[in-house]
Amino acid sequence: MTGLGGPSRGGLALHSGVRGVLDIPDELRPVGEMLGGALVRVEKRFEEALSADLEPVAALCRHVEAYRGKMLRPTLAILCGCAADGRSEGAVPDADALPETLIAVAGVVEMVHMATLVHDDVLDEADTRRRGATVNSLHGNESAVILGDYLIAAAYHWCATLDDPHYARRIGRVSMDLCSGELLQLSRRRDFALSERTYFDIVSRKTGALVAVACELGARAMGAESGVQQALFGFGRDLGVAFQIQDDLLDLTGDEATVGKSVRKDLEKGKLTLPLIHHLATGEPERRRTTLAYLEAATQSGHEDPAGDADLMAALDQTGSIRYAEATAERLVDQARSVLRGLPESAVVAMLGTMADAVVHRAF
Amino acid sequence: MTGLGGPSRGGLALHSGVRGVLDIPDELRPVGEMLGGALVRVEKRFEEALSADLEPVAALCRHVEAYRGKMLRPTLAILCGCAADGRSEGAVPDADALPETLIAVAGVVEMVHMATLVHDDVLDEADTRRRGATVNSLHGNESAVILGDYLIAAAYHWCATLDDPHYARRIGRVSMDLCSGELLQLSRRRDFALSERTYFDIVSRKTGALVAVACELGARAMGAESGVQQALFGFGRDLGVAFQIQDDLLDLTGDEATVGKSVRKDLEKGKLTLPLIHHLATGEPERRRTTLAYLEAATQSGHEDPAGDADLMAALDQTGSIRYAEATAERLVDQARSVLRGLPESAVVAMLGTMADAVVHRAF
Repeated sequence: MTGLGGPSRGGLALHSGVRGVLDIPDELRPVGEMLGGALVRVEKRFEEALSADLEPVAALCRHVEAYRGKMLRPTLAILCGCAADGRSEGAVPDADALPETLIAVAGVVEMVHMATLVHDDVLDEADTRRRGATVNSLHGNESAVILGDYLIAAAYHWCATLDDPHYARRIGRVSMDLCSGELLQLSRRRDFALSERTYFDIVSRKTGALVAVACELGARAMGAESGVQQALFGFGRDLGVAFQIQDDLLDLTGDEATVGKSVRKDLEKGKLTLPLIHHLATGEPERRRTTLAYLEAATQSGHEDPAGDADLMAALDQTGSIRYAEATAERLVDQARSVLRGLPESAVVAMLGTMADAVVHRAF
Repeated sequence: MTGLGGPSRGGLALHSGVRGVLDIPDELRPVGEMLGGALVRVEKRFEEALSADLEPVAALCRHVEAYRGKMLRPTLAILCGCAADGRSEGAVPDADALPETLIAVAGVVEMVHMATLVHDDVLDEADTRRRGATVNSLHGNESAVILGDYLIAAAYHWCATLDDPHYARRIGRVSMDLCSGELLQLSRRRDFALSERTYFDIVSRKTGALVAVACELGARAMGAESGVQQALFGFGRDLGVAFQIQDDLLDLTGDEATVGKSVRKDLEKGKLTLPLIHHLATGEPERRRTTLAYLEAATQSGHEDPAGDADLMAALDQTGSIRYAEATAERLVDQARSVLRGLPESAVVAMLGTMADAVVHRAF
C-alpha cells in the first residue's frame, strides 16, 4: 500500500490531505500517479482563476487555498471522466493529455465547495478548519462573507468560459440546490421531530448534489453519453450522502485533533443528524425524554455537560443508532459501487471503488 | 410632470420606489409607460427564476422580493438597450416586443444586486431595508448569508441559460470586481488616511461595475456593436459612482425616515467617504485632530454624541466638503451625459438624461 502520489509531484496540500484517507493498493499506483498529476494541473488553474489585482483580495485567496484538503470532488471528477472515456480501452491515461475542460470542471466544483466552506465557517462560528484558523476568526465575518462571494463569482466565471454552456447551467442549478438544502436545514434547527426523510432531503441537496455534478460533468468532459453522465450523477449523490453521514458521525463521536475542525457543532446548533433521529425514533419514552432535555440544553450558549455527553453516547450505543448510521452509509456506498459495475472494467474504475469504501472508513 | 407608469400596470414595488426619484416630463410619458411594461416583464421572469420547490426557501424569496426598490439597474439596462437599438429610428418600442434576452439581462443584474443587499445587511448589521425588516434581523445572519448565495446562484443560472455565453462571462467577471471592491473597502476600515484615489477604486468596483454592465449588456441584447456597448459601460460606471457618492452623502446627512434604511453606518463602521476624505485633506491641523478623534470615537459600539455630530456637520460645511462631494457627483453625471450625445437622438435617450440627473438629486 502506498499514499496517493507524493510531494515530489507538487500539490502538497492535496496529498497530505488524502494520504491517510485513501490507502492505494500497489496495483492502482499508476492511477494514483495520474491523479496526482491531474490535480497539480487543477491547482494551477485554480490559482489562475482566483488571481486578483488587489493585494488584500490576493492575500485572502492565498489563505483559503490552504483550506484545500481531501480534494474529494475534483478527484471524483477526474476519475469519473477517465472511467467514462470509451476511447482509453481501460488504460490509465496520461495526466498531461487530459482535456482542459475536465481540469476546469474539477477546479470549478472545488471552488464552489470552498466558497461553501468559507460561508459555513461564518454560520458555525468555527475557529478551526483543516488545522488552520478560519477566515472569519482572523478577518471577521464580513470578509468571510464577501470572500465566499468572490470564490463563487470566480467559479461561475470560470465555468462560463467553457465552450459548452451546459457546464455553467448545471453548476448554477446545483448551486441553487445546495443553498436550498442549507436553508431547509436552517429552517429545521431545534426541530427535534425532524424525520429521516427530511434529513435525506437536506443532505442530498447540501452535499450530494455537488459531489454528484462533479462526477456527471467529469464524464461529460470526456465525451461520455448522457446515460453515463446520469448514472455517474447517481453514483456521486449516493457517495456524497454517505460522506455527509460520516461527517455527521465524526462531529458527534470524533475529537477535534483528529477531525481537524471544530466538533460537536451540530448539537450546539440544534441540527439533528441520522444517529439522533434514529435514537429518538426507537428509544423508550423515558430515554427519549432524557435525550430531548439534553438536546434542548446543548443548544444553550456556553453549555458544558461531560456527564450528559457520556450518557448520550451510551444511549446511542444502546439503541444501535451509531451502528445504524454507519450501516446506512455503507448501504449507500454499495449502491454507488453498483453503478461502477455498469462501466467497462479498468484500473480507474477499481480506484473509484476503493475511494467509495474510503468515504465511510475515514476518521477525518 | 407625472410618476413613472402607475399601479394599474402592476409592478407596484417598482413604481412606488421610483416615483419620487424620477419626475418624468410629459413628453417622455410614452417612454415611462414602455418602461413600466418592460419592468413588469422583468418582475415576472425574476419570480420564475427564483422559484423554489421548498416552502422555507420560497418564503425567504418572497421576503426579499419586497426589497425591490428603485430598480435602477434593470431600468438602465432596458433604456440603454432601447437607446442603442439602431432599428427603432428614435421611436419608443413596444414593451411586449422587447427580446427576452434584454428582459433577462435586466433581471439578472437586479438579482445580483439584491444578493449584495442581503449580504450587505449582514455586514452592516442593518435592521431596516426599504422600510421593511431585513432578512438577517428576522431570520438570523445564517439564513441571510445562504439566501444571498441562493440569489447569486439563481442569477448565474439564469444568465447561463442565454444562448450567447458572453453574458455569463461578463456577469461573472463583474461580480468578481464587485466583491474585490467590497474586500478592499473592508481592508481599509478605520484607515483615516484613505486617499480619494482608493475611494474611487472602491466605489467604481463595488457600485460602478454592476450599473455599468447593466448598460453594456442591455445594449448588447439589442444588437448594439461593441463600441456602443463599451461607451454605455462607461456611462453606467460614471452614473454608478455618482449614485454611490449620493448614497454616502445620504448616509452622512440624511435621516432614516426619508432614506428608508439605517443611516450613519459608514461612520460607525469606520468607512471613510468622499466628504470626510476631502475634509481631512483640506481642514486646518487643529480641526483635523478634532475630526480624527470624533471618527475614532464613532466606531466604538454604542457611541452617541449629538453635539459631536452637529460639530462635524458644521466643520464639513466650513471646508466645503459636502459641496465638494456633490460637485464631484454632478461632474460624473455630466461626463455620463456626454456619452448620450454620441447616440441618435430619441425620447429614450432623453429619458436616460433625465435619469442621470435624478441620481444626484434624490433624497433616498
